[in-house]
Amino acid sequence: MAKVIVIYDQPRDQEGFEEYYYNVHIPLVKKMPYLNGAEVHQVLQTQNTSDQLFLFAELRFDNLEALNQAMSSPEGIEVQGDVKNLMPYLSKPPIISIVE
Amino acid sequence: MAKVIVIYDQPRDQEGFEEYYYNVHIPLVKKMPYLNGAEVHQVLQTQNTSDQLFLFAELRFDNLEALNQAMSSPEGIEVQGDVKNLMPYLSKPPIISIVE
Repeated sequence: MAKVIVIYDQPRDQEGFEEYYYNVHIPLVKKMPYLNGAEVHQVLQTQNTSDQLFLFAELRFDNLEALNQAMSSPEGIEVQGDVKNLMPYLSKPPIISIVE
Repeated sequence: MAKVIVIYDQPRDQEGFEEYYYNVHIPLVKKMPYLNGAEVHQVLQTQNTSDQLFLFAELRFDNLEALNQAMSSPEGIEVQGDVKNLMPYLSKPPIISIVE
């Protein structure tokens, strides 16, 4: 299994962020080929960081090859390009990790 | 669903960390009541942080009540106390988030 994990800090405009994120960004994510599950989790509590973690998004793929094919597909490129449309609502860009 | 997500930075002693983590810490985690799945993921690549993220661990529970009962059980208290035994191998304590 391989995943893309995206970690968002507390938005400076939470309402605007959530509006765009759930109505535009997530529907684009769900069009990605090879995607084998997506989860979005609200952060309730955090220890050992000064960051105000707000949300974890996890995109799951069968393996790293499927993840790479998804990210380089037209739909994957659109999702990555769409992150800039979230930036007006955020204080800093989300942390993006590829894990397996 | 609710999760504990634990994010470790690159250990200063990776071999010592992995030895203790996989042979002692994870077996303690697996004894926790209400645990409904645990995943450990190596970080391959990261964007938008100066931290050297190394490992994501995720403990899954059916809901927040089960998570809280697990964390306050004797086994959960032992797991949390065992994190200090990992510290000699680390540069800083892991980030711990509770999410749902």
